[in-house]
Amino acid sequence: MEEEEGGSTLRILVATDCHLGYLEKDEVRRFDSFDTFEEICSLAEKYKVDFLLLGGDLFHENKPSNSTLVKTIEILRRYCTNDRPVQFQVISDQAASLQNRFGQVNYEDQNYNIGLPVFTIHGSHGGPAGVDNLSLNDILSAGNFLNYFGKTDLGCTGVGKITVYPLFIRKGQTYVALYGLGNIRDERLNRMLHEPHAVNWMLPEIQDEIDWFNILVLHQKRKKASPSNGVSELLLPRFLDFVIWGGHEHECLIDPEEVSGMGFHVTQPGSSIATLLINAEAKQKHVLLLEIKGTQYRPTKIPLQSVRPFEYVEVILEDQVDVDPSDEATIHAYLHKIVSNLIEKVRETAASGSEPKLPLVRIKVNYSGFSTINSKQFGQKYVGKVANPQDILLFTKSGKRCKNKQESTNSSGEVYTNDLNQQTIEALISETNLQLETLNVNDLNSALHDFVNKDDKTAFHSYLKQSIDEARNKLTTATEDSTKIDEQQIACLLDQSMQAPGQETITKGRPGSQSLLTYSLSVLESDDEPVESSDPEESGSSSHQAAGRKRRAAPGGGDGGSAASAAGRRKTDLASFQRAPTKEDDADAAKKRRAPVAPGRYGAVIRRR
Amino acid sequence: MEEEEGGSTLRILVATDCHLGYLEKDEVRRFDSFDTFEEICSLAEKYKVDFLLLGGDLFHENKPSNSTLVKTIEILRRYCTNDRPVQFQVISDQAASLQNRFGQVNYEDQNYNIGLPVFTIHGSHGGPAGVDNLSLNDILSAGNFLNYFGKTDLGCTGVGKITVYPLFIRKGQTYVALYGLGNIRDERLNRMLHEPHAVNWMLPEIQDEIDWFNILVLHQKRKKASPSNGVSELLLPRFLDFVIWGGHEHECLIDPEEVSGMGFHVTQPGSSIATLLINAEAKQKHVLLLEIKGTQYRPTKIPLQSVRPFEYVEVILEDQVDVDPSDEATIHAYLHKIVSNLIEKVRETAASGSEPKLPLVRIKVNYSGFSTINSKQFGQKYVGKVANPQDILLFTKSGKRCKNKQESTNSSGEVYTNDLNQQTIEALISETNLQLETLNVNDLNSALHDFVNKDDKTAFHSYLKQSIDEARNKLTTATEDSTKIDEQQIACLLDQSMQAPGQETITKGRPGSQSLLTYSLSVLESDDEPVESSDPEESGSSSHQAAGRKRRAAPGGGDGGSAASAAGRRKTDLASFQRAPTKEDDADAAKKRRAPVAPGRYGAVIRRR
Repeated sequence: MEEEEGGSTLRILVATDCHLGYLEKDEVRRFDSFDTFEEICSLAEKYKVDFLLLGGDLFHENKPSNSTLVKTIEILRRYCTNDRPVQFQVISDQAASLQNRFGQVNYEDQNYNIGLPVFTIHGSHGGPAGVDNLSLNDILSAGNFLNYFGKTDLGCTGVGKITVYPLFIRKGQTYVALYGLGNIRDERLNRMLHEPHAVNWMLPEIQDEIDWFNILVLHQKRKKASPSNGVSELLLPRFLDFVIWGGHEHECLIDPEEVSGMGFHVTQPGSSIATLLINAEAKQKHVLLLEIKGTQYRPTKIPLQSVRPFEYVEVILEDQVDVDPSDEATIHAYLHKIVSNLIEKVRETAASGSEPKLPLVRIKVNYSGFSTINSKQFGQKYVGKVANPQDILLFTKSGKRCKNKQESTNSSGEVYTNDLNQQTIEALISETNLQLETLNVNDLNSALHDFVNKDDKTAFHSYLKQSIDEARNKLTTATEDSTKIDEQQIACLLDQSMQAPGQETITKGRPGSQSLLTYSLSVLESDDEPVESSDPEESGSSSHQAAGRKRRAAPGGGDGGSAASAAGRRKTDLASFQRAPTKEDDADAAKKRRAPVAPGRYGAVIRRR
Repeated sequence: MEEEEGGSTLRILVATDCHLGYLEKDEVRRFDSFDTFEEICSLAEKYKVDFLLLGGDLFHENKPSNSTLVKTIEILRRYCTNDRPVQFQVISDQAASLQNRFGQVNYEDQNYNIGLPVFTIHGSHGGPAGVDNLSLNDILSAGNFLNYFGKTDLGCTGVGKITVYPLFIRKGQTYVALYGLGNIRDERLNRMLHEPHAVNWMLPEIQDEIDWFNILVLHQKRKKASPSNGVSELLLPRFLDFVIWGGHEHECLIDPEEVSGMGFHVTQPGSSIATLLINAEAKQKHVLLLEIKGTQYRPTKIPLQSVRPFEYVEVILEDQVDVDPSDEATIHAYLHKIVSNLIEKVRETAASGSEPKLPLVRIKVNYSGFSTINSKQFGQKYVGKVANPQDILLFTKSGKRCKNKQESTNSSGEVYTNDLNQQTIEALISETNLQLETLNVNDLNSALHDFVNKDDKTAFHSYLKQSIDEARNKLTTATEDSTKIDEQQIACLLDQSMQAPGQETITKGRPGSQSLLTYSLSVLESDDEPVESSDPEESGSSSHQAAGRKRRAAPGGGDGGSAASAAGRRKTDLASFQRAPTKEDDADAAKKRRAPVAPGRYGAVIRRR
């Protein structure tokens, strides 16, 4: 292995929750999200990072306006396409981790000059939905603007089963396994993490001379902050070294924190734009420069300069001596004084020379014992002086606040507005004593979630379709000789992959048939023995040719279920994948495994700390 | 001028109305539009054309699904990015005609290998809308997948005024001026074409040694087919040599037809997919290979093979001896026989070896004197045999049909379903005797149109905003010294263009100030004298640097109206543009003009035939 120029230090800029297009109709704030995203890209340039890593929620809406898409693409194109050499390689099978038809990292497409690669998982906004389970990231990925990974096919029955294929990144002597897990509904992921074989983490093959640094980037509500319904970091596998927690948690807790007993640190960069006027969002926003050499890393937090100033205070009217409950004018005077002071404070701290952005100002007023005043009217005085004149004041009562606090508050004691108690389909069904056979309650829940939160009008349609197809397949399998069916299905699969021009599998020294066969079998298999492959040449860099011609993702009549859709999407030698053992597997299993081959192979090892 | 390799024959593949994503939820037909678009791209490859020219309506919907966008981008990326050398140049100021922030044709971006350039105008589906007036084409253009031209800023007051900046294309000794006019509401364009100075066609500067071939591509309803409300080809300027009529008219009338007295030919390629089950759509679909050498051209029509077979027949039940009005079974038997025969016909004509697509079948049944039968029930027999079992039969009565025919029929005698009599805001207002001062009736109409047809929820919002801004500007101008205002506005403009990083004007040997000044004056000028420029070096190839940083399209408080938005969007030396004389200008004006300079300059000449 030759040492490259650029040394062995992998430099990653980490940001998350950019919420592009947030408040795009607001006259004052419409460019905020783009300004900061542009700053992030320019920081990536300034610090000469190897790549930019995003933790999801790049967009604020599921169906952003044309304007938002155009602005986003313009920024990506301006910063990502240039002649700067990319000095790291993804040595694993790229098509296994990346969600696009071209099956490779964007900078390896010979028709593009990509100087700044961007890697991202999806978040809860704009995640995959619809018949083809596609998200905005897929659009940007198809256009070669970013490398979208961490997308999982949950399947339709039961809790679901996913396999996380990390990107194996090498720079000089530094080896990083980058795991991505795009947003899954918190409850579902929670359940999956509790079940023994629901989440399979693919590991690098053991090699004595290589020490891998294992990073996971995920996008979930964090249990620490929302104990009722988040995902706990204690459920994550212990072989991880570093966890990047994107999403939901907009508070910037960027300094890596050790999770005791787990052997990894967690960073929570927080959103790059304030989408809620709460205390947690008023703190300085940062991105993280993560430098990794071998298994050592150095985190450096970089403050974002373009973020609109945001001042937050809480006041309790009762405690103020000069405020008289019987005289509304004193309330006005008191609150106006606070706002003026905050505006003045922002003006003073602004860098001299540049004109500062109008600030966001939020006063949380505990008005127990007082009556509220008209918030809109109050704000009229501040048009042109603050960015949010219409909602400067937020009135609360102390009694109410304490009650809520027990149920759902984040670490800073703020009440989350989206933590409302939601009626689930589960509850509805148990109320009405319905008996569901073909349909699965949890998946109906998922469909409802997609319908409501992702604006996905086809959510129920595609869910029903999948369920019916699955039921039909089960019926067929039950009534005929199962071995024969498997063969037929596989033959059908092969037929398809042969017929579609340009969709040939790109196996080296191994016929496509074999790999599909192995894969579909390994997917269908339920015992714990990992399936070993003997292909000595598997490497991720060979997926360069044009990808398949058509994507027939909808399962046609009985053409082989999940294996078919996997074959349709991925263009790779899937035979070499091995399911990672879960926590229940013991060390004996690892010993039985073959000798290591070359870096970049998926192995089946778990490293406990 | 050196002769390039590739000779002087410019080869263009012309297609239109691909309607990508049409029926994307239909199990059988969901891939039809993509299959044919892919065939078109592969024909472009096969015939080694210089570029692919699309006449609008690339997409079927204004807000296509993620899946449709992804599939489209995948096809464009696969066919357009490659190493094939592009053997023609756009020698005019590219930023004047192209609608993107990068201000250049996509194949000149050094960070991309574009081997097949695509040029397109917008159609009526997915045209520009919203606050920033952006369309799906802008998204693809920002992503460097196509060259979007023919977008005009109609402004908000009155009929509007547009200037059409053609692309000047040179290949060897062939010079083509390619005019694009994206869809404008038919009525409005009609009115504009009737007014003397509403549409300005920029012409190449006269040069003795160069003979320009002038092509116009537009996307309108064609008066010939819909006499009541289309746009007449007789209103187009006579200097044109060749007109490509995209849009609405889905019938393939691809053989160029001379328009008597106008000196040009018109081709109407028609849609590449049947979106209406009418006779006009049942004809063989084609694309046009247009080869141009000097001012000679050769049109070759190429049949599309991937289009789903479509059989259409009309029957009159009264004329059939074996059909008995009192016996429904005889109607069934008769119609089933027809369908069977049509299916058989398709099977026979299909190329041997390949499995043909399920055909579309439509029987228009004149049932005068009979009762209708259940069309859905009738079709159940043909599930899996025809692509549209649910709507094979269409029942009409002869009386009704004749009555409609007088009002609105196309050339083939079919009734257009979208030719319904629509209530306009004009009518509403005159009914209620409303007096509008600041708001303009026609533009309200436009906004309504965008709201309904383009799904543009901000149509009214942005229209009102524009109107208010304009009214405010007028007020300011009326109360102050107008010269001073002009200067202030221009200074403000310049300020903006200086401040925005990367947004410098790229004038050679001419300060940006001068060019903006000249442009804003020439735009504001109302007399007929063309404004000449003396810049001897203007050339279109210099717009290569990265485009401006941010687009602040929303007119801020009094920052100079149309000139400001032009400056924000275009990165070019606008000083060299000259308004083309309209038909009212006489030959004298032409004689006063300066001597010709170099090809690629816009002149002000009109050539009558």
